[in-house]
Order: sequence, then structure tokens, then C-alpha cells
Amino acid sequence: MPVLRWGIASAGLISSDFAAAIRQYPSSENEIVCIAARSLKSAEAFAQKFNIAKAYGSYKEIAEDESVDVVYIGGIISTHAELMEMMMNAKKHVVCEKPFCMNSKQLRNVIAVAKKNDVFLMEAFWTRFFPVMSDFRKELNALGEIKVVTVNFGIDRVDVERMRTRELGGGATMDIGCYPTMFANFIFGSEKPEKIVASSQLLDTGVDQMTTVALHYSNGRMFNITLSINCKTDNTLRVFGQKGSLVLPGFFHPIELIAPEKTYKYDLPKSQYEMSFERSEGLGYEVKCVRDCILKGQRECPTMPWKDSIWIMEILDEVRRQIGVHFDADDTESSAL
Amino acid sequence: MPVLRWGIASAGLISSDFAAAIRQYPSSENEIVCIAARSLKSAEAFAQKFNIAKAYGSYKEIAEDESVDVVYIGGIISTHAELMEMMMNAKKHVVCEKPFCMNSKQLRNVIAVAKKNDVFLMEAFWTRFFPVMSDFRKELNALGEIKVVTVNFGIDRVDVERMRTRELGGGATMDIGCYPTMFANFIFGSEKPEKIVASSQLLDTGVDQMTTVALHYSNGRMFNITLSINCKTDNTLRVFGQKGSLVLPGFFHPIELIAPEKTYKYDLPKSQYEMSFERSEGLGYEVKCVRDCILKGQRECPTMPWKDSIWIMEILDEVRRQIGVHFDADDTESSAL
Repeated sequence: MPVLRWGIASAGLISSDFAAAIRQYPSSENEIVCIAARSLKSAEAFAQKFNIAKAYGSYKEIAEDESVDVVYIGGIISTHAELMEMMMNAKKHVVCEKPFCMNSKQLRNVIAVAKKNDVFLMEAFWTRFFPVMSDFRKELNALGEIKVVTVNFGIDRVDVERMRTRELGGGATMDIGCYPTMFANFIFGSEKPEKIVASSQLLDTGVDQMTTVALHYSNGRMFNITLSINCKTDNTLRVFGQKGSLVLPGFFHPIELIAPEKTYKYDLPKSQYEMSFERSEGLGYEVKCVRDCILKGQRECPTMPWKDSIWIMEILDEVRRQIGVHFDADDTESSAL
Repeated sequence: MPVLRWGIASAGLISSDFAAAIRQYPSSENEIVCIAARSLKSAEAFAQKFNIAKAYGSYKEIAEDESVDVVYIGGIISTHAELMEMMMNAKKHVVCEKPFCMNSKQLRNVIAVAKKNDVFLMEAFWTRFFPVMSDFRKELNALGEIKVVTVNFGIDRVDVERMRTRELGGGATMDIGCYPTMFANFIFGSEKPEKIVASSQLLDTGVDQMTTVALHYSNGRMFNITLSINCKTDNTLRVFGQKGSLVLPGFFHPIELIAPEKTYKYDLPKSQYEMSFERSEGLGYEVKCVRDCILKGQRECPTMPWKDSIWIMEILDEVRRQIGVHFDADDTESSAL
């Protein structure tokens, strides 16, 4: 099996955890060939930590590096679209952190760029690759009709600059709302809700600190989301069906599933590095899938296909429209391809 | 201590459980002197079950019975206001099942009738009298600022005629929504939410089968309610504060409280009768408090005062307005007193 050669774009905490996850695999399978950040100094520190040969002070240098097969983009949301297009136009495959873009219009452009360049593109929804998810699907199917899903996601990070800043794609809906929305897509599929009702309290910076979203589906089914960036909650997803219920604690990086007749538990992959975020070792599942897809010549990952990313982004668009979180990118005309 | 003499209005399941709860006390303290129902036959069967001396085939006979001190009203919501007024105008004290009335306009009238007749009046919010509630208050106060509360209440009773019928005050908001709303009042007090956002799916009968309510309070605090009458949920209230969280399973009749450093558990009172509803033995707490209030000459119960009932009913009014559940009683002018 040939080696997959990774470039890492941005030297932030999540990139560091992702690099550590790549290192769960032998360098004969996955190798990190370069790291780039806006600051060369940050890139060099990152390169030193992970013993990466090349550190760049601009993202353009990754695009120009012929040894790179696939680029992992871990930076701030507002930079995603431009970086993805840059890399794909240089014929690199791309894995980009969630949420993919600032809005679905941007995302459709990005997907068009992937098609034009015939490269692999995937939103880095690591949750979907956790082993619990196949048992979750199996247990879902045993519950009869799913009627009610509740999920709360609360973190105490309202003072983090990036989270507060509209220009960077901050706020609860964008930063954490994408996770519950991904689960609505996973549980109810691509069916559109009959009605979406969102309400929020905004910070004076124009982004939301707390938001609720009700997705009303046909036949008396609903998916209710509670988001907060000013308070930690139990971050648990609860599914209620006609024949019983499922509980998924720590739903965005789940290693436990409480089903009617069984509690499933999973071990995380081991890492030689200390992680910045809880359970980031689980990024390794995603790394494996990306490699498998690219080696097979796939352009989309069946586990996290483009249509699901678009579905999620369209819900987030509508939530932001209702609560009044507006990005400059929402006013931009579609870019020429 | 003198005996408190009860009349029971309506012979339904909740009245039966309430009568059983009265019987937790010696007849020298609480005695049931009569039972009335629209059907004399039902009243007689009830009287026989509980060995009650007098069975009436009309509610008016309770009002005319001079041996009655206090009337428990357990019937259908749409009948509450008229029955309460009838009993209070006959100088009886009144305890009436929740929700008190069809809307807050009716409720204000009923309270005026209580004042005019100088009698005791209380909404039968049994939950407030459970012993867990004082520990819940204590633990709430230790959580720092409460930021997020989530509560779901789901039952599988959409096929019950009363639940489906608009004319009887059916639907999720009225039948079960009053409980979470009572907790919003208990936790955040009489402060009005800055914003109330409700959304729903209605049955073809014009009442709601599932509803979500977001109560947005100042300073980034919120109380989120999920209601369903087509699916059982875990019926748990979860409070997230800056210093930790509280979990109240079976929140509408709680006998357990999971606090940061301690799990509280409580025994229910014993009953010689089999109950129709789970944990109805807990109605005995309420019976005791009613007796104490009346013996002290109180007209309101400090644990469930009129202002709290009005607060709750006004929230339910607004929720119904937003989701489009309209009662004929909403169009009626204030009745003359």
C-alpha cells in the first residue's frame, strides 16, 4: 500500500491533535510532509513537535509542494473556502474541519471546484467515523419510529475571541451547532424538516451565545437542539422511539451508547502525544477512512458525502437567518469558478 | 385539631388517587364526606370503593352540602372554572387540578371569586409539595448562576379522547406543558422571559401533539421545553449552572435528585389503595399542606400562590397563541362577578 502524504494547513490546537492522530499509523501508510501557518514561527514550532521536515509561513507553499497528496485544513471557519479552493486548484485532495464554510453558497462553490479538479473533498466530521456509529444505527433501526430527539451541547467558552467574533464565523450555531445538525441528518436522513424554528440570544458582537433549534418533521417527529457557549451542559443526545430510547453521552465524540438492552463501550485509539481536546485520539478513525477513500480513487467519502454537508449547511443558514447572525460572506455573489 | 371535611368533584382516575391520598390520614384529620360526578352511577361506585357516605349525581349537590369544608376538583380542564366558581360562591374552599383554567383571563376571574367569598383556593400542583423540592432549592442555590435548563415531558397518549379534543382543553401544552412551565417559575421565579418562542405540530383536531418552548431570560439564560403526547421520553429536568448541574428524573413527581456531590432519594407515603397513576401516593404531601393552610385561615398556599399560577397560565396562553391552539374560552369576555 502506498504512503499517503499529508500537508497540514494551520498550526492550531485541532491541527495538532489531527497530526497526532495521523501518527497513530506507520509513516509507510500516512506521512506528514509539511505544515504551514500564517506565522512561520508557529509552523516551525509545530514541525519541531511532530518532527515534520518542512515548515512554511504561507499556505500557498503547501499548494506548491509537489510532495503533498492531501491537505488537512484546521483553521478558522472564515478561511476555509479560500484555502480549500487554493489546495484543490493545485490538485490536492482536501479534508477540511467542520463547519465546512460560512454558508451553503460557499460550500456549493467549493464542491464545484472539487469536481472541476477531480480531487477528494470531505468535511472533517470525525464523529461519523467513531465505531459506536454503526451500533447506533443498528439500535436506531430497532426502536420503531423515532419520534423525539433531544440534544444539548454547551461549552463555557464565551470569552474566547474566535467564538465571539462574527468575522471569524463565531457563535454557538456555527461552532457547535453543526454537530447536533449532523445528527439530525444521520438519524432522519436527507428528509427536510417541515418547519425549522430557531431562537437565540446574541452577544453584542452579533453572534449567538445560546440558541435553540426545533426541527419539526412530518408525522409528529421532532429533533430539538439546545446550544450554549456560556455554560457546560451534559452534551448528551437522547433518542426516543416507539419501542424505547437510546442515550449517547458526549455525543460529538461518543465512546458509549446506552441502548434498551445493552450498554456499548469502546476504547479510543492510543496516542503517543498529549491531546489538546478531550478524546481527540478518535480523529484517528477519520484519518484511516480518508486514506482508504483516496487509495480507492473516491472523490467523496460515503460516510460523509457532500450532500450531507450541504444539508447541514443549509440548516445552519436558515438558523442564522432566523436568529439574525449575518456574515459578510452571505452578501457575496457566487465566485466565478 | 378539627377534622377537614372534603367533597370530591368528579369520579375520574385522578380523583380516585386523590381520595386514596386523603385516606393516608386519620378521619379525625381529613374526612371525605361526599363524591359527585355527572353520572350518579360513577359517583356511587366511587363512594363504595372509598366507603364515602354520600354520592351525588350533580356537582351542585356538593355546593349545597353544608358538611363540606373544601372541594377537590379533578375533572376535565374545560370544566374547572365553572366548578370552582360554583363551589366558592357556596363558601367552600377549593383545590383544583392543574392546569387551573383554559386561560389566564378565566383564572383571574376565578381568583376574584375566591377573594369575594374569602375562601382558600389553590392549583393542585402536587409536585411542589414533594420533599425533594426543598433540597432541590438548596442545591440550585449552590450552582452559581443557572444558565441552561432542559426538560422533556413525553407520554404516549395521543389516542386518548380527552387529550385529542380541543373543546376539553386537550393537547400537549395544556395537559403536560404546565409542569415544565411550573418549574421555570420555580427556578427563575416571577421574572418574565425576555422572549418566548414556541413551535409545534398540531393534530387535525386543532391541539398540539408535540411542542417545543424556549424561554429566553436575560443574561444568556434559557429554559427549554420539549413536549410530546405521541412518545414516552425520559421526563427528566436538567439544570446547568456555572458550578455544576442537577438532574431531576421523573421531574413531575420526583423522588430522586442527582446533585453534584450527592444523590438524594425519598420514600413515598404508603397507601392502602392501588393507584391509577405512578407515584400518586405523593398526592398525600399536597393534602397535608392544604389542611395546614385552611386550619391557619390562609386563603393562598405560600408554596403554590396565585401569582405563580397566573404566571404559568400566561406562559401557556402565549405558547398557545404562537402555535395556534385556540379555545372558545379565549373569545369570551370576562364574566361578571
